[in-house]
Amino acid sequence: MMIVMNAKATDGDIQSVVEMLEAKGYDHHISRGVERTLVGAIGTPDGEKQAMAEQLMTLNGVERVVPILRPYKLVSREHQEETSVVYIGDAAFGRGKVGIIAGPCTVETEEQTLAAARAVKAAGAVCLRGGAFKPRTSPYDFQGLGEDALKILATAREETGLPVVTEARDVSHVDLVAEYADALQIGARNMQNYDLLQSAGESGMPVVLKRGLSATVEEWLKAAEYIASSGNLDIILCERGIRTFETITRFTLDLAGMVAAKQETHLPIIVDPSHSTGHYLLVSPMTLAAIAAGADGVMIEVHPQPDRALCDSAQQLTPKNFQKLMDNVRSLSTAVGADLQRNSEEA
Amino acid sequence: MMIVMNAKATDGDIQSVVEMLEAKGYDHHISRGVERTLVGAIGTPDGEKQAMAEQLMTLNGVERVVPILRPYKLVSREHQEETSVVYIGDAAFGRGKVGIIAGPCTVETEEQTLAAARAVKAAGAVCLRGGAFKPRTSPYDFQGLGEDALKILATAREETGLPVVTEARDVSHVDLVAEYADALQIGARNMQNYDLLQSAGESGMPVVLKRGLSATVEEWLKAAEYIASSGNLDIILCERGIRTFETITRFTLDLAGMVAAKQETHLPIIVDPSHSTGHYLLVSPMTLAAIAAGADGVMIEVHPQPDRALCDSAQQLTPKNFQKLMDNVRSLSTAVGADLQRNSEEA
Amino acid sequence: MMIVMNAKATDGDIQSVVEMLEAKGYDHHISRGVERTLVGAIGTPDGEKQAMAEQLMTLNGVERVVPILRPYKLVSREHQEETSVVYIGDAAFGRGKVGIIAGPCTVETEEQTLAAARAVKAAGAVCLRGGAFKPRTSPYDFQGLGEDALKILATAREETGLPVVTEARDVSHVDLVAEYADALQIGARNMQNYDLLQSAGESGMPVVLKRGLSATVEEWLKAAEYIASSGNLDIILCERGIRTFETITRFTLDLAGMVAAKQETHLPIIVDPSHSTGHYLLVSPMTLAAIAAGADGVMIEVHPQPDRALCDSAQQLTPKNFQKLMDNVRSLSTAVGADLQRNSEEA
Amino acid sequence: MMIVMNAKATDGDIQSVVEMLEAKGYDHHISRGVERTLVGAIGTPDGEKQAMAEQLMTLNGVERVVPILRPYKLVSREHQEETSVVYIGDAAFGRGKVGIIAGPCTVETEEQTLAAARAVKAAGAVCLRGGAFKPRTSPYDFQGLGEDALKILATAREETGLPVVTEARDVSHVDLVAEYADALQIGARNMQNYDLLQSAGESGMPVVLKRGLSATVEEWLKAAEYIASSGNLDIILCERGIRTFETITRFTLDLAGMVAAKQETHLPIIVDPSHSTGHYLLVSPMTLAAIAAGADGVMIEVHPQPDRALCDSAQQLTPKNFQKLMDNVRSLSTAVGADLQRNSEEA
Repeated sequence: MMIVMNAKATDGDIQSVVEMLEAKGYDHHISRGVERTLVGAIGTPDGEKQAMAEQLMTLNGVERVVPILRPYKLVSREHQEETSVVYIGDAAFGRGKVGIIAGPCTVETEEQTLAAARAVKAAGAVCLRGGAFKPRTSPYDFQGLGEDALKILATAREETGLPVVTEARDVSHVDLVAEYADALQIGARNMQNYDLLQSAGESGMPVVLKRGLSATVEEWLKAAEYIASSGNLDIILCERGIRTFETITRFTLDLAGMVAAKQETHLPIIVDPSHSTGHYLLVSPMTLAAIAAGADGVMIEVHPQPDRALCDSAQQLTPKNFQKLMDNVRSLSTAVGADLQRNSEEA
Repeated sequence: MMIVMNAKATDGDIQSVVEMLEAKGYDHHISRGVERTLVGAIGTPDGEKQAMAEQLMTLNGVERVVPILRPYKLVSREHQEETSVVYIGDAAFGRGKVGIIAGPCTVETEEQTLAAARAVKAAGAVCLRGGAFKPRTSPYDFQGLGEDALKILATAREETGLPVVTEARDVSHVDLVAEYADALQIGARNMQNYDLLQSAGESGMPVVLKRGLSATVEEWLKAAEYIASSGNLDIILCERGIRTFETITRFTLDLAGMVAAKQETHLPIIVDPSHSTGHYLLVSPMTLAAIAAGADGVMIEVHPQPDRALCDSAQQLTPKNFQKLMDNVRSLSTAVGADLQRNSEEA
Repeated sequence: MMIVMNAKATDGDIQSVVEMLEAKGYDHHISRGVERTLVGAIGTPDGEKQAMAEQLMTLNGVERVVPILRPYKLVSREHQEETSVVYIGDAAFGRGKVGIIAGPCTVETEEQTLAAARAVKAAGAVCLRGGAFKPRTSPYDFQGLGEDALKILATAREETGLPVVTEARDVSHVDLVAEYADALQIGARNMQNYDLLQSAGESGMPVVLKRGLSATVEEWLKAAEYIASSGNLDIILCERGIRTFETITRFTLDLAGMVAAKQETHLPIIVDPSHSTGHYLLVSPMTLAAIAAGADGVMIEVHPQPDRALCDSAQQLTPKNFQKLMDNVRSLSTAVGADLQRNSEEA
Repeated sequence: MMIVMNAKATDGDIQSVVEMLEAKGYDHHISRGVERTLVGAIGTPDGEKQAMAEQLMTLNGVERVVPILRPYKLVSREHQEETSVVYIGDAAFGRGKVGIIAGPCTVETEEQTLAAARAVKAAGAVCLRGGAFKPRTSPYDFQGLGEDALKILATAREETGLPVVTEARDVSHVDLVAEYADALQIGARNMQNYDLLQSAGESGMPVVLKRGLSATVEEWLKAAEYIASSGNLDIILCERGIRTFETITRFTLDLAGMVAAKQETHLPIIVDPSHSTGHYLLVSPMTLAAIAAGADGVMIEVHPQPDRALCDSAQQLTPKNFQKLMDNVRSLSTAVGADLQRNSEEA
């Protein structure tokens, strides 16, 4: 890291910085400019960098501490230059391969889930989504069916052959999800639930990690590093919109942030146009935009009867609209050179 | 709720809205204006309001659905007009009573914690804080001492008589925290961890609920409602800054939002100037500002040697600076009519 | 508008609201629900709606005032259902027609501008952009060549046949820009410079109105209404990113907001991927994403030698990269059914 | 500035950076760390720093360019350590002196303005505010009386002796405002209207510069530098809230940002609790909070009959509430050691 001394820092101030660095085992390097002196800290990272940067900030004469290295390693392109391919069941994401995940916001009944699963399979999805544990912002809203939902999802997988991704909302759900599903999703509100991240990492399952609604790309990648540092690199990131002052959409889908993140990390990144926009009329254009921008997949909510859905009615596509969208996705994918994955029905 | 039809809505569209309302057991009321027709839904809330609003949005001709009632009840001023007084041990917060909570960011050693506890007691704090389970954004940072930290906090309470508040980061920590501490804190990153909210509610302990970094006041109060709906109304809200585009401070402390929230809820609200600003030079002015604005308490980080702290060095006050601040807090409290709580040493 | 009375509003409070409405010439309509009474104000808008809503808020018992109609008219889809086609010279934007505007951030020299103009013409742009008056955030930065730049742009138009769009930063620039250019751009920082909006409206020129960096879609459309209310509906909106907490990109490009805005307004909307992202590597993916999402055009910065540009080097494409991008734009446009406009060279 | 090379930068890449620095007349300094090489650029600022930083970003192997010096000089504490005192008429702001500016949002009639002026004088304000040119977000709203309003303000000054501050919305208003008023205000929407900033600087009048609603503190100080670089250092900054996702208040008042800004600049900073919160119930607590936090003044809207105001009714205090507030301001100022300025009536 680089310590910027302020204009009035004395030699004694600089000496204090040097002593703190030496005490922590860092080499240093002093550069005296016309208006500022800089002290560079050189050495092997020791797991206390953030703490040391904070401690340096308390010293007299220190104006700023500028980190030079990024705060993540295993998930970075420096660690691995080539984009990873991550599999959910036999569906591949990354390194040009683009998969469509679809299904209802929430598992409500077996009938509804099977209807959705059949429809998305027929239209070309390679993976089924569906919520079992719903993080609802009001205690008076429907909270999901829990394990019963997981069983229904497993039935739908058996019938359609589509691998299943579903959210674990708490550490206590991880084993259950692992038992029934093919990938474990960590929701936006849990992106910095570190116990859950670690538990997901240790599960060994593929993890879909949604970006927190107020998380920078850097924080998102640090959350992925949590999972990776538990030995699990089967991580798919999912951009799902950030919170901004704009309310005409539910959140602000950050496609440019997704592209910028892909330059930083080798992990595949998919996009959720349903939660981010909150309205079905925006889902199709944002799906196409995501693929044109280079997303490795898209996760779309589809419900047999959106007007009867127990949650997020407004953002779920009908099977018919999903099918139309998939036709457009196919044309677009060809035009932009994306290798759109197909399911067994199409293959 | 009020359904606003768009300018081209037909009689049939209006009829569909009416039918959906009737099917859910709501009365309705149609108001035909010059440019828009409004349909009012009248009836007893039924726990599916959010879902119904979403479903209505999928109908032809519906432009918007405007909720009329707030999405929280037990914590609202409508439910209880007078501000609640909530106790942590014998320290009171609310209805004019203002308490100062202080202590280190993290429990590092018994020596460090006892030194901090004695210093904040001597200066006038009525409650001790200290982190046992730290939500750190990097997997390579110090994560807290866990149960050992809780034991140290209990020792510090025994010696100083100060009640203890500490964070539970996960459902699995709730029982442990309940065993050792006087109040359970839910951190900003967990404000929408609904399992944790429910578990905190069921614990029966006083809960300090921090505002999420991207949570609106409404969402914050809905999170409090989660706790309250579990039968526990001993809730103290804590404003700790929201995420904005401004980075000169770590977060943006929203004191006006705190005052606006106090108009909505009878729960006491305290302010955390340490995490919100991220720098000790801002902690004193923001403490005074919070009390002048009507906060029911302030939670301040104090460390015997901030430059050696294992986390958040830059934002922790020295005991000496904390004492100076407390002198100013006393003058200010008198001037603005706040009933500043005193600890046993002062009483 | 709808006035929501609070739970404790008395009959007298409601009467005061009714009297204020009657005094302003509005009819009213009272709806008494179980928990709230609503008063609807019905009547012809009178140019003082915003003021009246504020005045109602000062009355006892009033909880909220909910506007029902949108605060813009001429630019809305209600006023005109079909998307407008707006021409800059002979380049068309809107109703399926998609045009690419390109050129340097700033006019630096005649040589640089002509080189850029020839390159973007050859690659397929239909319109030339270039800054004459630059809104720079530091007084020590290059401010643009002013009228000399306008003359250079006119020369470039003469040689290439490309119509020219350039920014007027102040009311005093409007006549000058009108003399030399084919369309007048209003920059993001000036979106609420109402004198400039009015002056642009009165100029009768086509206006490219950039979205303010902290403007909601509603505020953006209200700014367009300012221009339209001066009698000029030749307005092209330009999404160029909003300010959020994310800094990995310069601003956050809001493509979903663009699509949502297109549902509200009949005006064509183009996208500026250069200023919004701030880095050339993001310009190509965001150009493709914009067209896939349904943008009516894209405005791209191209410089013959970006590494020598006097401003915004990092976001300007080389002619070679721009040509590659245009090849991809052509494939994509065919796939998504966009009618990509061609210039005279291609036609 | 410091150029951070990426992990794969070659010696040739570093050489290209060095050559660009040398060509611009900078010395350089290379520091090779374990994982990154840093190149320091040392030299006299040359007015093209921002452009050069951008150009460096286009070179191969360059990961980031970190500016070391701040982008403002004249307004910084480095340039002048002691806080400035700025006078509006004989009212002083800064270096401990705290003044209250009050008056109506907009000048509506002579009667209304005189009533407000008398009331705020009687209660203890030292300066009168009132809008002549209103920046309204809708073309259908009241736009202000223009020069007639300036004449009314001059009359109010004559009668009460209070100096007058009012906004110039456009360069064309500057001379008019200079003729009638004692200080010129630049509104939040114009904070980056560089022509207006320069014109205000050249007017030689005291300038009240409001923070833009999406401006960082750094950008705000850069805007002040624009004025200062025109030779005018009689600048009072005014914090008036920033745009965030929170809508329970109109904007988010950033008091901690104000304190952080005061550490950077010697200019006095006042706070506008009226526009920032948008509701009169929040104005009093935020006024007290601002003074407790160390603001050099507060600007408050007061209207003889808020419920009849032509704009911003909801945020204007009645004379009676303003008087109560001033009583509290006096107690608080004594407690926190602020030197509250008094007008001729009180002196």
